[in-house]
Amino acid sequence: MAVNLPPPDPAALHPVPGVELATAMAGIKKPNRKDLLVMRLAPGARVAGVFTKNRFCAAPVILAKKHLKNPVRALVVNTGNANAGTGKEGLERAFAVCKALGSVMGAKPEQILPFSTGVIMEPLPVEKIAAGLAGLRGAGWAEAAEAIMTTDTVPKAFSRKVKLSGGEVVVTGISKGAGMIKPDMATMLGFVATDAKLPQAALNGIAKRVADRSFNCITVDGDTSTNDSFVLVASGVGIEAKSKDVKKLEQAILEVGQKLAQAIIRDGEGATKFVTVAVERGRSGAECRKVAYAIAHSPLVKTAFFASDPNLGRILAAIGYAGVPLDTDKVDLYIDEVLVAKRGGRNPAYAEADALTAMRKPEFTVRAVLNRGKAAATLWTCDFSYDYVKINAEYRT
Amino acid sequence: MAVNLPPPDPAALHPVPGVELATAMAGIKKPNRKDLLVMRLAPGARVAGVFTKNRFCAAPVILAKKHLKNPVRALVVNTGNANAGTGKEGLERAFAVCKALGSVMGAKPEQILPFSTGVIMEPLPVEKIAAGLAGLRGAGWAEAAEAIMTTDTVPKAFSRKVKLSGGEVVVTGISKGAGMIKPDMATMLGFVATDAKLPQAALNGIAKRVADRSFNCITVDGDTSTNDSFVLVASGVGIEAKSKDVKKLEQAILEVGQKLAQAIIRDGEGATKFVTVAVERGRSGAECRKVAYAIAHSPLVKTAFFASDPNLGRILAAIGYAGVPLDTDKVDLYIDEVLVAKRGGRNPAYAEADALTAMRKPEFTVRAVLNRGKAAATLWTCDFSYDYVKINAEYRT
Repeated sequence: MAVNLPPPDPAALHPVPGVELATAMAGIKKPNRKDLLVMRLAPGARVAGVFTKNRFCAAPVILAKKHLKNPVRALVVNTGNANAGTGKEGLERAFAVCKALGSVMGAKPEQILPFSTGVIMEPLPVEKIAAGLAGLRGAGWAEAAEAIMTTDTVPKAFSRKVKLSGGEVVVTGISKGAGMIKPDMATMLGFVATDAKLPQAALNGIAKRVADRSFNCITVDGDTSTNDSFVLVASGVGIEAKSKDVKKLEQAILEVGQKLAQAIIRDGEGATKFVTVAVERGRSGAECRKVAYAIAHSPLVKTAFFASDPNLGRILAAIGYAGVPLDTDKVDLYIDEVLVAKRGGRNPAYAEADALTAMRKPEFTVRAVLNRGKAAATLWTCDFSYDYVKINAEYRT
Repeated sequence: MAVNLPPPDPAALHPVPGVELATAMAGIKKPNRKDLLVMRLAPGARVAGVFTKNRFCAAPVILAKKHLKNPVRALVVNTGNANAGTGKEGLERAFAVCKALGSVMGAKPEQILPFSTGVIMEPLPVEKIAAGLAGLRGAGWAEAAEAIMTTDTVPKAFSRKVKLSGGEVVVTGISKGAGMIKPDMATMLGFVATDAKLPQAALNGIAKRVADRSFNCITVDGDTSTNDSFVLVASGVGIEAKSKDVKKLEQAILEVGQKLAQAIIRDGEGATKFVTVAVERGRSGAECRKVAYAIAHSPLVKTAFFASDPNLGRILAAIGYAGVPLDTDKVDLYIDEVLVAKRGGRNPAYAEADALTAMRKPEFTVRAVLNRGKAAATLWTCDFSYDYVKINAEYRT
């Protein structure tokens, strides 16, 4: 069902020295399914994270943010239970998982970052997870990607090699996306690791900028989950990234991050179209994002995407109510290379058949040119289909 | 299909002295269908309007706003064509309609307010409308409500009588809602008239306050159309509303306005549930509205409404990302009288079956109590069903 998203080829996923992966079937929600992932990090590894801004943030997120201040030795991710909306007891249970893993591998609980996704408002089954941690088996990145899936239909993993001045390093990452487990919300998790060595401040900066240009540029339905997290690991056992190398390394991390983020949209609930929304020539990045989000979140626009309907009126209307004081007489609108609206009105040379051809493809770009500045912003989104309603409504039968 | 919305009883709709209604079948889009309404006003009638804030506003809206500064003699409403996204020519055509009606009834074009709803980006068929104006027939409010329908499934009209100190006046109104005509967007039109006489400033104030508490409190999908308009007429041929009477009159107008606005939601595209979203004890009305809109616009919440699923996690998540710096540990959440979340977490005494019983009804209330102030806000919304996607996607086949 996913849009142009083949499963990862394990041979194309470079192992990351200094990051040891292991998975288990802990039976948290379903038997015979990998539902536990541990990423064990070499001593001295550096970790940076970007977390959900939802005020109702889940217990593991609260703990991960806190533990991030310590030298981190491992990440533990469970599916099947989000440990969200679980109050003080949820925090205790998340900490118990850190403790269990710490005792297995000889680290303090405060050196473990916990992540959870799945059912909310239900107590985290710590015993099952602890038993699972005792039975971990070494795994590759493709298996790791599989172990963090909820209702994703395809595992998501991407990899790059980069030549720095001192030699080659690798960047490999996994993500899970808009999966819905009753009664959960769409949680996004992304983990990217490199063996490069670089200072904490540089890593923090990269994590923030990469998140802003990847995971923060995607939207399925505008809902922000309580558990969304993006974590960037530099194990430090590989080549040192000198200051002149950092930009190149960041570019590779960005590429992996964008692929992982886009994969979430390609595998969005009920998605049949992968749509890039580009807003150009605005006064500021912020106003371009406002316009892009108005387009990407409009259910009218999204159902038109589903129908391959070049319903430019709906897109113009969304631009019009985005809350940006723009001059509508200056707005141009393209579907791929087809100029549908010119200076705020229908392009006289526009033939609907041209836009229809573009929109019938599984991927296309909606481009709004505001003609009032030099800033731009890009988002990736998907359409609203029958299956979106089905997936989100019909699990109760 | 509409939720608890019977068609209006013509006998219950009080005629408004000083407002003469007439309809015609102009064949604008479909033959044998009332698609033209004229509301002719007594000389001296006062008119106030509240219009879409969409930057792409339609030609008739631009003209109606302008003509509102003159003594208004009539309103003319056509369906079948929105005259939106039509540029300078659209303005000329809207003006031509005003001119045609003006010449029929002996008024200046500048004294006519035009309204259009229907297909966008297509030239308004002025000749058909002019021919229709020549063949107008007197009508009652129920017929008027019918004449402005697009894909509404039920005509919408409500009426009240009010005793003022000098005697009785009437308030009667009609609306049309979230109808979709390819390739249009959901346009909302509301017209309320009274025979009371009152000063222009008072009328303007009432129109603004009533809109804020009725038509501005409804949302089907968050999309704001290019043509949305609410117009309040005081024909002035009836009893004078003295300053001590104005509050009572405003209350009756508000009741009619709220009924008309709620009717739009009850007849929302694909709606199977009518949901009141009440946010209480916030610091300001604005922050309560932010939270209410986050709940009402979340596709995850709306599909849960459709499924009668008491998925409080989705509602809490929407509250959490509304952009209000609230303390989640203080938030209580009710479905009707069922306390589902208490102080930010699951209410220990909560049984899902109770919320399920409430949500299975065609109408229920979601109430979020923020416990951080004294302000409140209420919105009305509907669910997202298969039919929402169907209506908005499948007209192209």
